[in-house]
Amino acid sequence: MAIQLYDLAAANPQIMFGPFSWRSRMALLHKGLDFEVVPWHWNEPNIGPNSFASVPVLHDGDTWIGDSWDIALYLDKQYPDRPTLMADAESRAAAQFVMGVCGALVFPGAIPAAVYQAYQILDEGSKPLFRKSREEMFGCTLEAIHVGEEKGKAGLATALAPFNETLASSAFLGGDTPTYADYVLFGVLKWVDIVSSYRAIDESSDVGKWFVRLENMYDGYARNVPTVRNTRA
Amino acid sequence: MAIQLYDLAAANPQIMFGPFSWRSRMALLHKGLDFEVVPWHWNEPNIGPNSFASVPVLHDGDTWIGDSWDIALYLDKQYPDRPTLMADAESRAAAQFVMGVCGALVFPGAIPAAVYQAYQILDEGSKPLFRKSREEMFGCTLEAIHVGEEKGKAGLATALAPFNETLASSAFLGGDTPTYADYVLFGVLKWVDIVSSYRAIDESSDVGKWFVRLENMYDGYARNVPTVRNTRA
Repeated sequence: MAIQLYDLAAANPQIMFGPFSWRSRMALLHKGLDFEVVPWHWNEPNIGPNSFASVPVLHDGDTWIGDSWDIALYLDKQYPDRPTLMADAESRAAAQFVMGVCGALVFPGAIPAAVYQAYQILDEGSKPLFRKSREEMFGCTLEAIHVGEEKGKAGLATALAPFNETLASSAFLGGDTPTYADYVLFGVLKWVDIVSSYRAIDESSDVGKWFVRLENMYDGYARNVPTVRNTRA
Repeated sequence: MAIQLYDLAAANPQIMFGPFSWRSRMALLHKGLDFEVVPWHWNEPNIGPNSFASVPVLHDGDTWIGDSWDIALYLDKQYPDRPTLMADAESRAAAQFVMGVCGALVFPGAIPAAVYQAYQILDEGSKPLFRKSREEMFGCTLEAIHVGEEKGKAGLATALAPFNETLASSAFLGGDTPTYADYVLFGVLKWVDIVSSYRAIDESSDVGKWFVRLENMYDGYARNVPTVRNTRA
């Protein structure tokens, strides 16, 4: 059986957009492993024998893993003959630092654009639970967080500023080829991209060009997925 | 003749604190190269045959280099048999990303604590020029930017948050051993440390512990330099 990856799904289960799941999707593509993505709705039961309460969850044979970082480490350990996501301690530290910057800067910059749009495409059964968890997390209503297209794009661009210098002179955060550090940031941005009624990233910026480069890799896998702009939610 | 590195000096020329020069100092220590630091005051003439207007400037034989990033690249190229600062494109991209985060987050978090204190220890001849350049850069007076110890420490801690996650699980940003990425951040923090009347970094945080680790390397070079706290300015 192929590897299964559980991802957060909209009312239309073709649309799957978990930012952390997208890190794992790109990691699986990087490793060249066959996998299927299993849509999971917010109000469905916890996943697998470990009862994981959030996605991604990886199911590979008898192994279940419920955290995107652990999934990345597992894939390198379990499939050492495939391209490595993080070759050494330096590469792992670099990816962790991108995770830290995403937590401190990119998520806060992206949430005003994306989280209410993400809410709007959920199935009716999941909406109240999603709203409750997010409003507790942010301390205000989803409507109070939400900003429109202009402010959404501007906030995202500001949050991405520290990446532009690197991506002006390197093709990838990992250097000449992508490493897991690239997929860490990409996951956040693909989440915004899938749920937004507009193209949130500035494709003329260095980080925007990098985003398109990654979308086009692996036979255009990320470019071709269903989004709210190309699919009925 | 030993390599010379020009650094920004206070009225007391023993106190030298340029944040970018500190990146180069640590790089020279990492390479195990002999060097002397040449104090340079803000109102002194430009440096060397290329007339560099700011520090660091590296003078090695017939070579003059006037930018900390170029100095790092030069040292790896010129001294390949010494420990590498950045082993490959991935390592260079990681260091550049730390530079980007320093520009977007760490400098803005550190400047309110440090820049007015740095001004105060300059020689009288340099003060008006320094004030003019900084007030033009920031768009307000040095006094308006300045915050005291409590706010200074808090602002710095907030700016350093994205580094804590990485440094909780890695000894260095470069993994098990420091790379140039480490010295990029260290330079900014050593600048704050040298000019501040208090210990600005929280030594109990993961980034604080990392800072102390780097201060203690190379026979405690960075720990033992003159600062405003251990020297008469």
